Amino acid sequence: MTMRSGLDRWTDGFSEQLNTMLRFPLGWVNADGSPNHIPTGKRIRPILLLLCTQASGGDWKQALPAAAAVELLHNFSLVHDDIQDDSPTRHGRDTVWRIWGKPNAINIGDGLFAISYAALSELPQQGVSHEIVHQVMNIFNRTNLELIRGQYLDMAFERQELVSLEEYVSMIRGKSAALIAACAQIGALIGSGDSVCAAQYAEFGLNLGLAFQIRDDILGVWGDPSVTGKSTATDILARKKSLPILHGLHADARLLSFYRNSDMSAALVAEVITLLEQCGSLDYAKQQETEYYEKAINALHKTGSSGEGASILRNLARQLLGRSH
Amino acid sequence: MTMRSGLDRWTDGFSEQLNTMLRFPLGWVNADGSPNHIPTGKRIRPILLLLCTQASGGDWKQALPAAAAVELLHNFSLVHDDIQDDSPTRHGRDTVWRIWGKPNAINIGDGLFAISYAALSELPQQGVSHEIVHQVMNIFNRTNLELIRGQYLDMAFERQELVSLEEYVSMIRGKSAALIAACAQIGALIGSGDSVCAAQYAEFGLNLGLAFQIRDDILGVWGDPSVTGKSTATDILARKKSLPILHGLHADARLLSFYRNSDMSAALVAEVITLLEQCGSLDYAKQQETEYYEKAINALHKTGSSGEGASILRNLARQLLGRSH
Repeated sequence: MTMRSGLDRWTDGFSEQLNTMLRFPLGWVNADGSPNHIPTGKRIRPILLLLCTQASGGDWKQALPAAAAVELLHNFSLVHDDIQDDSPTRHGRDTVWRIWGKPNAINIGDGLFAISYAALSELPQQGVSHEIVHQVMNIFNRTNLELIRGQYLDMAFERQELVSLEEYVSMIRGKSAALIAACAQIGALIGSGDSVCAAQYAEFGLNLGLAFQIRDDILGVWGDPSVTGKSTATDILARKKSLPILHGLHADARLLSFYRNSDMSAALVAEVITLLEQCGSLDYAKQQETEYYEKAINALHKTGSSGEGASILRNLARQLLGRSH
Repeated sequence: MTMRSGLDRWTDGFSEQLNTMLRFPLGWVNADGSPNHIPTGKRIRPILLLLCTQASGGDWKQALPAAAAVELLHNFSLVHDDIQDDSPTRHGRDTVWRIWGKPNAINIGDGLFAISYAALSELPQQGVSHEIVHQVMNIFNRTNLELIRGQYLDMAFERQELVSLEEYVSMIRGKSAALIAACAQIGALIGSGDSVCAAQYAEFGLNLGLAFQIRDDILGVWGDPSVTGKSTATDILARKKSLPILHGLHADARLLSFYRNSDMSAALVAEVITLLEQCGSLDYAKQQETEYYEKAINALHKTGSSGEGASILRNLARQLLGRSH
């Protein structure tokens, strides 16, 4: 409940309406202000951060303000992302801009951004030293600039016909993996007070984040709608340029011409999927996912963390990537 | 040049295009990336901050990262504000969203916001203690939440026919005066290390900021176009609800019906101005401006600052408000 009471402290004196708007994207309330009990997110980032605090020898309770900060930051980026992408829904609900308009949604995102820093600034009250808080703040700042860089590239790529696989990985490194890396690094820094150890955790998080994003890319084409909650091949219908699709666009000129010209009928989507499989794009993406996953597990091993903490982190990584081994 | 080299450090690895977009609103470059030599802002906030560091007994050089932070924060808020208001120009140039579109402009604002925190985090390198940095960070966080609250109210007021004078002052306190207050407070905290003294400076800044905004409101109706750079009575044409106009709307029902119904012809604008003068709205606004100005000067007196530092601050306050006495 730290996050809720923290938010209350920083938004004291706000009108009821503004408070509802700030809490809606966190999934705590509905648009009319009534409590919402349906989960709207998996809270992967704060959980990962707290587990890394524990695995690196610390007490997860000390890291609670940082866990709140990364979840708030993630939600800030989603609120702005939904405006930028014109997305009408998220987690099965209308997006902030759909309900309150884009000008308000920009302001709400800014508010969550500011509150994420406000949360971080409460670390000293949990007994974290000013020196460590300063290092945490630096990681957080760097991460935010990585988010900006990734978001810029993502939007720029939409206007480019082709993007190299290296450029794509650089984009998801900023847009998706940097924050996962920061969660692991900040958690371990608070847990161990050791920046070298924390850098190993960052390596774990970065590779886990990359593997996680590539898995998402695979599910966007080959996912089971009953599991992903999206219709099959959403990413093809939306002409997204995810990793497997980019691989195919580079490998087979027919795919490029489909993406360039045609309306995406159901029959054509099936043909695109077949072509992608034939030119090895699914295999390529799976292999990339596995490589990053193995790098993540190796980095975790190198942290020197052992026992329960490390095994929970390994299980989390497996679960996130739907792996049985 | 601290601000430029600081920005370079944090945006190392960004593409040329993204770097241009981030530097454009600061007035350093034109949209094509070429250097811009025409001033785009008065830099009031960083100057005020550094003067308060000096006046409170410190060395302004120590406060440079904080001065950069408030200027970056101010520019972040302008970039987002221009999107929210659909404003096509600022400082005689196209706004960021007009040049690069709203999705990019949201991201650029977010980037400036993140870099403002990154700048603050460099205070320890200037020899400011972690304890003081922590207090500065708290002031900065509170200020950001005040900006969010003020911006929310400003947008909400646009959809309300009438707003009370108290509500209006509460809005400008958040949207305009809070950051001026923070500049004075942060500057004095770094200069003196004394939070009680810094709170007096905050009082000075807050009242100065309120007086400054009300003066701006007066100039929006009665300003000399050759001085303000805007056409006469812009605020009436745009149906703004600034302090003198709100006073008139409450005082004279004819004004309300003009605002409610008519096209604003030049003749009507003249009539609105006459009505505002007749019902004492100009006098009311002038008197409010003077009250806040005097509160500011009293607060400055109470800081105990004397000598050159205090007299420069008094002169700055006079200049900002166009006062000869």
